[in-house]
Amino acid sequence: MSISVDTFFLNPQFQGTLQSQIQQMIAEGILSGRFRQGEKLPSTRKLASHLGVSRITVTLAYTELLANDYLSSRGRSGYFVSENAPEPPPFEALRQNGDSVDWNRAIGRRYTGGDTPRKPVDWARYRYPFIYGQTDSSLFDHANWRLCAIQALGQKDFAALTTDYCDLEDERLVEFIVRHTLPRRGIVARPEEVLITVGAQNALWLTAQVLLTQRRTAAIEDPCYHALRDILTQSRCHLVPLPVDRDGLPPHAIPSETDVIFTTPSHQCPTAATMPMSRREQLLDRARELDALIVEDDYEFEMSFLNPPSPALKSLDRDGRVIYVGSFSKSIFPGLRLGYLVGAESFIREARALRASVLRHPPGHTMRTAAYFLSLGHYDASIRRLRIALKERREAMQNAIQANGLTIAGQGAHGGSSFWMRAPNGVDTEVLAEQLKPKGVLIEPGRPFFFGHDRPKEFYRLAYSSIPKDRISQGIQLIAETMSD
Amino acid sequence: MSISVDTFFLNPQFQGTLQSQIQQMIAEGILSGRFRQGEKLPSTRKLASHLGVSRITVTLAYTELLANDYLSSRGRSGYFVSENAPEPPPFEALRQNGDSVDWNRAIGRRYTGGDTPRKPVDWARYRYPFIYGQTDSSLFDHANWRLCAIQALGQKDFAALTTDYCDLEDERLVEFIVRHTLPRRGIVARPEEVLITVGAQNALWLTAQVLLTQRRTAAIEDPCYHALRDILTQSRCHLVPLPVDRDGLPPHAIPSETDVIFTTPSHQCPTAATMPMSRREQLLDRARELDALIVEDDYEFEMSFLNPPSPALKSLDRDGRVIYVGSFSKSIFPGLRLGYLVGAESFIREARALRASVLRHPPGHTMRTAAYFLSLGHYDASIRRLRIALKERREAMQNAIQANGLTIAGQGAHGGSSFWMRAPNGVDTEVLAEQLKPKGVLIEPGRPFFFGHDRPKEFYRLAYSSIPKDRISQGIQLIAETMSD
Repeated sequence: MSISVDTFFLNPQFQGTLQSQIQQMIAEGILSGRFRQGEKLPSTRKLASHLGVSRITVTLAYTELLANDYLSSRGRSGYFVSENAPEPPPFEALRQNGDSVDWNRAIGRRYTGGDTPRKPVDWARYRYPFIYGQTDSSLFDHANWRLCAIQALGQKDFAALTTDYCDLEDERLVEFIVRHTLPRRGIVARPEEVLITVGAQNALWLTAQVLLTQRRTAAIEDPCYHALRDILTQSRCHLVPLPVDRDGLPPHAIPSETDVIFTTPSHQCPTAATMPMSRREQLLDRARELDALIVEDDYEFEMSFLNPPSPALKSLDRDGRVIYVGSFSKSIFPGLRLGYLVGAESFIREARALRASVLRHPPGHTMRTAAYFLSLGHYDASIRRLRIALKERREAMQNAIQANGLTIAGQGAHGGSSFWMRAPNGVDTEVLAEQLKPKGVLIEPGRPFFFGHDRPKEFYRLAYSSIPKDRISQGIQLIAETMSD
Repeated sequence: MSISVDTFFLNPQFQGTLQSQIQQMIAEGILSGRFRQGEKLPSTRKLASHLGVSRITVTLAYTELLANDYLSSRGRSGYFVSENAPEPPPFEALRQNGDSVDWNRAIGRRYTGGDTPRKPVDWARYRYPFIYGQTDSSLFDHANWRLCAIQALGQKDFAALTTDYCDLEDERLVEFIVRHTLPRRGIVARPEEVLITVGAQNALWLTAQVLLTQRRTAAIEDPCYHALRDILTQSRCHLVPLPVDRDGLPPHAIPSETDVIFTTPSHQCPTAATMPMSRREQLLDRARELDALIVEDDYEFEMSFLNPPSPALKSLDRDGRVIYVGSFSKSIFPGLRLGYLVGAESFIREARALRASVLRHPPGHTMRTAAYFLSLGHYDASIRRLRIALKERREAMQNAIQANGLTIAGQGAHGGSSFWMRAPNGVDTEVLAEQLKPKGVLIEPGRPFFFGHDRPKEFYRLAYSSIPKDRISQGIQLIAETMSD
């Protein structure tokens, strides 16, 4: 690799000769680790012309650096950072810029302090990854995704790739969602009622910003998706956590001051409970009674493989009070960052203006690739494969859990991709998770899903979306053994 | 295209026979435009098994629809939506869902009402598009971008593509920015001081959310980038617009209560002024005096083709009080949605937590593709080509502007991609822009860049980043003719 001539600037305030300034720039580059051993310097001619100095000045600087063994020369092929050049110390040592800002004062608002756990980046190295929401390379149709992505890179789609959509988005993707994706959920919507977002999390966040203020009350499931809890906490609304039961959110428990209800009816996160039809109707009735809105996070709609899925809450909504959040993270892959919102036009208009301000629009290539993947039928085929594999894995999970005497605290009636588990009283699943890691087992401790100070420690989630079927039994056995140690 | 069996649901509350319910579902699908002429229905066997009803029920429903000419049958190949089926009316007509929500009350916070103009989606159809910030297909290295994108779709990068990075990002992209991109601007930074964002606008937005509250004061250039003004207006901080002169933001005008200064030193947006080195030092001194922070939006750093670029304000920052916003929108393409923030670690930490909450991370494929494009040297080559073309176009612009007696109000000392123009007093450039459209000319009226109620109407921007050189003279002539009509 060559060092670009563009990294060199003369500083008019520099105290010293031009030659020493050039020498110092190069040495600092090496010492700070910006220029690495073996990298080629610009030729003396090039650097001289770039800086507007005479070539002899640069040659003298290089010669001095040669003598000090910062540089080596290889005859006609030029100057290189010497193999004997000083090793760069950690960056900190050489930074000229101090930090005299009082950041405690300068930061107007803090966003750290949430409790959304980071997923282990190296999860794929574990033999028994019972973790949620990462992509199983054996199930995802990578080949066809790649073909769609290549198609979306073609000359014909140059505008779709490069254009500044401002506050708009790829019409073709919206059209497919309206014509194809939503009807499967029983939802009829016009394009004006749909907004494409940078993942479902972005959809939830936008919704919270539009609907909630410090004077509004949101009802939320407890336990719930930790990132949603962090979003709502940041919105500073009044937050009412409602303990879920085996059918999900209990409508009668929703307090009368509630403005917005956040719920996950198809598969409650994290307990995996499916809300029965009768309760869906009760929930809608309760919302109507309170004139409250409902935000339906349907993040796992496609994972219904045991029974036909229930229609979405949104499809039963006769008042326009349900805002629907859809995701492609589980069904395509999370790194895609593509989701969508469906709701009343006046709501979508505000969410659209906010999205435009925050990030303009999701990347054009991402949207067009997804549009092709959907419209060519690969999405449906992918989902069918996924369902078959998840069904087999779920059976393996159930058998292994039973054989090892572990306790299921919640499971979806229609499928899903995880079991909500309860360890014996006294077991701290955060400790358990750490004990399991050296054995190659990843589990998700349940505490971060709960609200409040005294959060239960005995729950944990076992997902089967990323673990091969034939490792399930061994993995569950390791969990059981470690728990009883 | 076939209609998927999954779009059909039975509604337990339906008043009527199963057969009539099935009939109605299909008819509604056709009438609402969800099922289109020529599309194939699921086989009677398949639909019956999906709904859990007898096959004869479905057959009877289909036969009834045949008789009504909703469907046609083609012997053994099944049932199709008939060519004579009723044409779908606009969606509005058939929507069952009313909207009984009082959205005026339900919306907690409004984000519409900003004044960022939408760019014309069909700009490429105009012969003389003097518009800013769209990609010129003749200059962008589409072939190599495509190769990098394809590489990033490979098996080796499966994790980089699909993974949920949570609050993190692609390390390779960060490494290249730190090692390669920032040194060109004279900036030394550690990876912990960099955050990848969904475009530079996202970087500005995150910065505003972290630094500003209702109790803080932001100083901002007037005129300025309209989207930034909308972002700051939404933040509800106290906003002080400072008229710029030919050298950009005047440091002495910054009021003493200022907490954060937003500036565009390399090319002031929209006047294209380049801030001289001496003023950069004065600006830093003024900020130090006030203990204020500076947000440097360096959206057009690469567009310096007349003189070597000045080092960024951030590179002169000895206190850590400059937050640097970088963009790949101008140098790669705006639909990419990739930018970055450089700042003190404690600031980046908060911005990172907020980004995670708002959207988790930019799409993996986008980040990895950019990392390849940068590291394989295509980016630099691309920029060189861009600079040569822009330099030629700028000359053509200058000649044509002079020949036609138009008035330049601002232009970059180092390059840029636009001229800031002033029409004779009394000319309303928003009217002018409309008059020019039928003649194939697109210009940008200047009013939306200004603050306040009585915003000047005679300014306009002429960009040359998307117009071929040989059309410039004719385009400018049309502007001059129309103006004097």
